[in-house]
Amino acid sequence: MAKMRSVQVSHPKGPFELVEREIPAPRDGTVRIRVQACGICHSDVSMVENDWGSSLFPMVPGHEIVGQVVKVGAEVNKLRPGDIAAVGCMIDSCRICSYCESGLEQYCDATPTSSFSSYERGSHDLVFGGFSNSYVVDERFALKVPSSLDPAGAAPLLCAGITTYSPLRHWKVGPGTRVGVVGIGGLGHLAVKLARAMAAEVVAITYSHPKRVEAIKLGAHQVIVSSDEADMKANAGRLDFVVDTVSGDHDVEALLNLLRTDGTLCMLGIPRKPLIVPPLHLETKRRRIAGSIMGGVPETQEMLEFCCTHGIAADIEIVPVQEVNTAFARLKRNDVRYRFVLDMSSLAA
Amino acid sequence: MAKMRSVQVSHPKGPFELVEREIPAPRDGTVRIRVQACGICHSDVSMVENDWGSSLFPMVPGHEIVGQVVKVGAEVNKLRPGDIAAVGCMIDSCRICSYCESGLEQYCDATPTSSFSSYERGSHDLVFGGFSNSYVVDERFALKVPSSLDPAGAAPLLCAGITTYSPLRHWKVGPGTRVGVVGIGGLGHLAVKLARAMAAEVVAITYSHPKRVEAIKLGAHQVIVSSDEADMKANAGRLDFVVDTVSGDHDVEALLNLLRTDGTLCMLGIPRKPLIVPPLHLETKRRRIAGSIMGGVPETQEMLEFCCTHGIAADIEIVPVQEVNTAFARLKRNDVRYRFVLDMSSLAA
Repeated sequence: MAKMRSVQVSHPKGPFELVEREIPAPRDGTVRIRVQACGICHSDVSMVENDWGSSLFPMVPGHEIVGQVVKVGAEVNKLRPGDIAAVGCMIDSCRICSYCESGLEQYCDATPTSSFSSYERGSHDLVFGGFSNSYVVDERFALKVPSSLDPAGAAPLLCAGITTYSPLRHWKVGPGTRVGVVGIGGLGHLAVKLARAMAAEVVAITYSHPKRVEAIKLGAHQVIVSSDEADMKANAGRLDFVVDTVSGDHDVEALLNLLRTDGTLCMLGIPRKPLIVPPLHLETKRRRIAGSIMGGVPETQEMLEFCCTHGIAADIEIVPVQEVNTAFARLKRNDVRYRFVLDMSSLAA
Repeated sequence: MAKMRSVQVSHPKGPFELVEREIPAPRDGTVRIRVQACGICHSDVSMVENDWGSSLFPMVPGHEIVGQVVKVGAEVNKLRPGDIAAVGCMIDSCRICSYCESGLEQYCDATPTSSFSSYERGSHDLVFGGFSNSYVVDERFALKVPSSLDPAGAAPLLCAGITTYSPLRHWKVGPGTRVGVVGIGGLGHLAVKLARAMAAEVVAITYSHPKRVEAIKLGAHQVIVSSDEADMKANAGRLDFVVDTVSGDHDVEALLNLLRTDGTLCMLGIPRKPLIVPPLHLETKRRRIAGSIMGGVPETQEMLEFCCTHGIAADIEIVPVQEVNTAFARLKRNDVRYRFVLDMSSLAA
């Protein structure tokens, strides 16, 4: 029986250890992917640390997975051995509710199954993630990666990319839209690139002066420094739509003031503390605060093709799996430009 | 010189006293209304008590004004002596911004002028409200009241009516929409009637069991008692759109759970404390919290005609002006079904 190698944590906060498991036998409709690259997302850190109280151990994190299809089960039509495939945040859903039927599996009435730290649907078998050299997935939840995309640069598109692409599309960002991107990190740097490629006017909003130059290099037309009160005041009421990618606790009241009438602030991060929202900030300009998660399978495929067309990839730092503990420590202090990607070839026996 | 009689407060919290002032000389474009009825809104209480720190004294409150046009200045085209006219929350705006130009004067870039406790635009002349037997207003901000509407029952439409009508229209409530109305009071009872007339499925949400029967009588198809956890749980994820009319501090987190994916909770009241919003409640179902105030002049006119067509008026308790202090005290403890309306004929000399 073939073995797969992974790095896992056996209890909250780690550390990571190398483990071997048998590769599950191929089932109808599933494909086996030899993982080439897996991004490290801030939510991998939150899950390892059990920030949300829902983590299951032992845990192999990883939900930004790109690799080559090496084996397909019966009744597989979308993918063939040799294809480059990807897996994002979800690997299953109920498949019969109105959301699943319309390709919005992320909003499945029965909650989608996560690609790690979850149970396989209808069983108590733990699901292990992409920090591994092998991943088996139902092809319905696998994506085809256009061959011109670099696997490592594409990996973060599967979570950071689609999580920002989906709301930008849903709120119809495009020519004539002035869109704000709060936080220039893993999600934010992709949001800037995506919104720019959608021909919007892009305004990066960052807490720190040093990221001003970086944001412009990424494609922002303008940068607002949120710690600069005068800058915030000068830009009051100017933005149509803002995606907020910050996962630390922060003040959304000040961000609401940047919105024009009928503008929307869309939360993508998961701060621990609830948002504090004075109702008049919404009412006097008919503003909205919204939230969005991930994206459905068809939209994720569309996003990969959009990135291929527009030459968009994540800015990454590739690290061997042996350095995963260091990478986590650095990510926790935001010391990365802008995403770590684990090179899974470093797991070869 | 003709005199007008009003009830005013000279300092925060009152009491009201009868005063006389000269009626302003008619100017170009203005009309003089002999006020017949003026509703008492919760925001009149807040302004008298200076809850928001913006009150100007002496103050004649009142912004739900209906009466007969008795005099018109030069260049008045919309109204003629004998017409029944109305004035709501606004009496002026910049008139040149994109919102004013598109009939959304309530979102005027330069902030609209309130119909009391404000200064006339470009001056330091205090504006006095509708607790008076005379009101002079620019005809651009006056509405025509269809002759079949009872002046007293129509008065609350000018604030409570339009404040609920506007978001119901903006968010396209109609057949196939399941709409929630939180709080069955001045605004809420009209929201139930309006949403029902728009052919939506109407769900009243009230904290107290006794209002269950009242809400059904008003036209609600269903009532959820928000203090009943089982009732709230059974209705999770069922509503498309919710208007929240409650002005006291309350828990919006529980209300968010009633919304389905892509649903919106629209705040209309002005609780003193900010809203506490866990971001995941928004994100996992792409929900929104929005806010809305009043309505523009064309939409207010449309609302009056809608109410005429559908036979909608506020449920009111008519009180003579001499009882205004008592009415305020009762309103503060929510002891009214559902709106006090001052009978201004009681101010006749």
